[in-house]
Amino acid sequence: MAKRVVIIGAVALGPKVACRLRRLDSEAVITMIDRDNLISYGGCGIPYYVGGDINDLEDLYSTTSHAIRDKAFFADCKRVNILTEMEVVAIDRKARRLQVRDLKNGEKGNISYDILVLATGANPARIPVPGTDLPGVFTVANLHQAEKIKNLMKAGKVGRAVVVGAGAIGVEIAEAFTDLWGVETTLVEKEGKVLPMMLGKNISRIVTRQLEEHGVRVLLNEQVERIAQDPETGALAVSTGCENIPCDLVVLATGVRPSSELAAAAGLSIGSNGGILVDNRLRTSDPNIYAGGDCAEYTHLVSGDKTIMPLGSLANRQGRIIGTNIAGGSSHFRGVVGTFCMKVFDLGVATAGLSVEKAREAGYDPVAAVVAQADHAHFYPNSELIYMILVADRRSRKVLGVQATGKNGNAVKARVDSVAVLLEHGIGVDDICGLETGYAPPFSSAMDVVNNVGNVLDNILSGRNRPVDVLEFFTMFSEEKTRVLDIRGDREAAAGREKYGSRWLHIPQAELRQRITEIPRDELLSILCDTGPRAYETQVLLDSLGITNTQIVQAGYAMIKVIDPDFV
Amino acid sequence: MAKRVVIIGAVALGPKVACRLRRLDSEAVITMIDRDNLISYGGCGIPYYVGGDINDLEDLYSTTSHAIRDKAFFADCKRVNILTEMEVVAIDRKARRLQVRDLKNGEKGNISYDILVLATGANPARIPVPGTDLPGVFTVANLHQAEKIKNLMKAGKVGRAVVVGAGAIGVEIAEAFTDLWGVETTLVEKEGKVLPMMLGKNISRIVTRQLEEHGVRVLLNEQVERIAQDPETGALAVSTGCENIPCDLVVLATGVRPSSELAAAAGLSIGSNGGILVDNRLRTSDPNIYAGGDCAEYTHLVSGDKTIMPLGSLANRQGRIIGTNIAGGSSHFRGVVGTFCMKVFDLGVATAGLSVEKAREAGYDPVAAVVAQADHAHFYPNSELIYMILVADRRSRKVLGVQATGKNGNAVKARVDSVAVLLEHGIGVDDICGLETGYAPPFSSAMDVVNNVGNVLDNILSGRNRPVDVLEFFTMFSEEKTRVLDIRGDREAAAGREKYGSRWLHIPQAELRQRITEIPRDELLSILCDTGPRAYETQVLLDSLGITNTQIVQAGYAMIKVIDPDFV
Repeated sequence: MAKRVVIIGAVALGPKVACRLRRLDSEAVITMIDRDNLISYGGCGIPYYVGGDINDLEDLYSTTSHAIRDKAFFADCKRVNILTEMEVVAIDRKARRLQVRDLKNGEKGNISYDILVLATGANPARIPVPGTDLPGVFTVANLHQAEKIKNLMKAGKVGRAVVVGAGAIGVEIAEAFTDLWGVETTLVEKEGKVLPMMLGKNISRIVTRQLEEHGVRVLLNEQVERIAQDPETGALAVSTGCENIPCDLVVLATGVRPSSELAAAAGLSIGSNGGILVDNRLRTSDPNIYAGGDCAEYTHLVSGDKTIMPLGSLANRQGRIIGTNIAGGSSHFRGVVGTFCMKVFDLGVATAGLSVEKAREAGYDPVAAVVAQADHAHFYPNSELIYMILVADRRSRKVLGVQATGKNGNAVKARVDSVAVLLEHGIGVDDICGLETGYAPPFSSAMDVVNNVGNVLDNILSGRNRPVDVLEFFTMFSEEKTRVLDIRGDREAAAGREKYGSRWLHIPQAELRQRITEIPRDELLSILCDTGPRAYETQVLLDSLGITNTQIVQAGYAMIKVIDPDFV
Repeated sequence: MAKRVVIIGAVALGPKVACRLRRLDSEAVITMIDRDNLISYGGCGIPYYVGGDINDLEDLYSTTSHAIRDKAFFADCKRVNILTEMEVVAIDRKARRLQVRDLKNGEKGNISYDILVLATGANPARIPVPGTDLPGVFTVANLHQAEKIKNLMKAGKVGRAVVVGAGAIGVEIAEAFTDLWGVETTLVEKEGKVLPMMLGKNISRIVTRQLEEHGVRVLLNEQVERIAQDPETGALAVSTGCENIPCDLVVLATGVRPSSELAAAAGLSIGSNGGILVDNRLRTSDPNIYAGGDCAEYTHLVSGDKTIMPLGSLANRQGRIIGTNIAGGSSHFRGVVGTFCMKVFDLGVATAGLSVEKAREAGYDPVAAVVAQADHAHFYPNSELIYMILVADRRSRKVLGVQATGKNGNAVKARVDSVAVLLEHGIGVDDICGLETGYAPPFSSAMDVVNNVGNVLDNILSGRNRPVDVLEFFTMFSEEKTRVLDIRGDREAAAGREKYGSRWLHIPQAELRQRITEIPRDELLSILCDTGPRAYETQVLLDSLGITNTQIVQAGYAMIKVIDPDFV
């Protein structure tokens, strides 16, 4: 008899399971159930729909060949039955039967399965403060919400907006509001940095500046205490401990939680992150039930901890694996290293593995190198800087994570991806120094930024390069704990000398040995060049001359400029 | 006593060794010798200098902070002695002494060393035909030649040029001549495809078309027999077996040979490619002599064979390793997988590992998947296709190589690099299916092209996907060995139906099951869709209905269009 396969959830993982399975098993009876009437859409496209890069909602649920992925499409092209606006009330695992309720008419029924797939996704994590249910307060959990928000924008009803939560979705929505609609947008984040889960402080600061430069007001370390509505005017106001922000629309983007209630009620094992636990074939604790995508949790292959990772790309790849396994194949999912990328206005941002902060939490002793280097050969025109961070464990030299940003987003992604795919193999810093990526002057440097970030980290770990990161340097300098030794040319150093006088010592690199007596030995010097390499060379030279009380400003003036252009 | 380190060759590897060593050892006496007066330059920039992307020759030997890398720079900033226009005549290994000759005045002398580094690079491989020494016949081996060529261009003296050899340099030079200078350029290649050493036939064809579309005349399978000059007019002519091509300038770009004569004369071991043999610390057969860069040969980590790999990026990374080892460290170079990228007019081209042809030569049984897919989510605007090929061994499923091209060069590089860095780890096709690269709609697809090329290859290896590549399809179709089953929409299929009549069967995918009786069972059908996925789905459906005499046109119409737009 043909296998009855039922899939709960028809957005990303579900359709992929169905299509893969259909191609492997022409007999199986495949049924996919969803509460919504819109299915099989690219949820990651929502911010771009709201922001106008995508005009038509249909684009998000069309194929590359412009077919609408609706019930008829799945029936005709995939031979998959779709039940929309249908809720699964309970799973009877013993009887292998689902209790369902038709949301259109309230009718109840049962659906039997041989194999069940849970593709229930995730729900927005609502913050427990008053007012989140007011009209004008949204999440961006599905296309209906996205459409409502866009219609308000189109109608010119939104002059000011508050986005709560500076994770990826919050940042993307803030960009969408500001960029196309010119909405005065405030982004409120309870942590001390934007994209707190994925970025360390340096790259996060660059992203914050990018948001601010494009008119987004970024409030960090502030928690929303309530959202209120003026009963007369209908105007909203978001209150944090510090201020009251009037606005016309609020988007809550405070993360998501795995939708695992149905699984939990059926007695399936749930992990500490609230996600369904699965084995490396993506089976739950019941071998007849698979789960994947946003509703499950996975092993982080660097930290070793379980984690959630709500990403459409992951759901698609896992869907293929589940489809293969249901059809009798043997396909495995080892876990994740957390590779991610995004666009923030003119910047590409990419990350994989652990930031310094997350590495410390995971029990490592992390050391980071920060570099700024052109995306291609410096002699080839139109280069853009890439800011890149590599994190490794001090003792084992194992690479733990990588982050980068820059205006050439594809080039940023290239560097991070080439490290990301190696993370699970437990590579060391030397592997990054020697990484064999493609070289041609229009696309990379002979010693590319990805190799150089390895070289710098190697030098730091070997004790040859003693760095200070720019944020730390700012603090030390403002507390008068260090002077600057600027080794750039006269023109580059002029502003610092003028602003800070004797605290900004200037000796061009080529004159260092002749003017060595001018260098004070009794105080900590922060050596500054354009991006770092010459400062390193200078530190090495000064060391050899017995002047060792120095530190290198990591990524040099390029980093200062992008984080705080007013500093000098 | 301070170590005396002498480096022969001061272009890429040499300066890197010197600078790295200086930073690790402030005492060493470092001397670098070169025949030329220009040193430490980016030779890979020569085609872009000739083509006008780089205006000033100095840019190729300046640092990122615009310092000229000349003798004074190396003396002041690096404490490295440079002897230019000095030739090393012989190495006396026993006495650790070099015989040298000053090219300015012919004076001879000796230089002693404790450690010697051979960074002698490579020489153009001149073809053994008459006329290669005529005026107007150039190689692009150094900056002087580049300058001469550019001056001729600037003076308007070149209307027609012939470039012999369609390797990377030949292709780049052909682009430079055509793009900026509007020179009528013919590119002559003795093999049957451009970039024959690095590309398989499909991607190579795309590059050929790109060259032709931009006005380069490409002659394949033609060997130059002689170059002649009209004694009256001074005009040149390049003769192949087939024709006589009149021109004003000839560039010979027929590959390079390691400059290993000095090493060979000193009795060092030389490999079968003519390169100096080195161990994984980059030491020659004499432990006091290191070698790296273009003059040595290396293990290809996929084929296992020795190979040469003349690339500035490799030389730089190897230079760092040699510097470390001379200073008493322990740094290793395992070998190469042949990662390479380049720009060809509007295209980026990237490759790593082995093509099908090279894999077969290396004793594998290679199978390839060919896909065409947008560089980012199809619903996000302004996507460009990436054409990508993945090669694996049939039995072991080990990934052997990858190639890609497309107009978004950085995106092409990102995909190839993320596979390239894994090649030496002996990964399988499943690892590519699951590759965790960054996803966001502006930069990638939820099921990205790099995962999809793995998926397709997995399906082929499992026998579920029976493909034909487009070039083979062209042959079979012209020989009437196959009919087309076009499953696209009416509009897309119209041209084929009109041109080929009943040989171009058209049934849209959604109508297939209803119209199954129209499908002939007695002849081989080539299933065609836009890029391949729907053709695969169709093949699977037809298989389940007992119609198995089918093959999928790999990468579909997208591949047909880019290889031969006149086909339909």
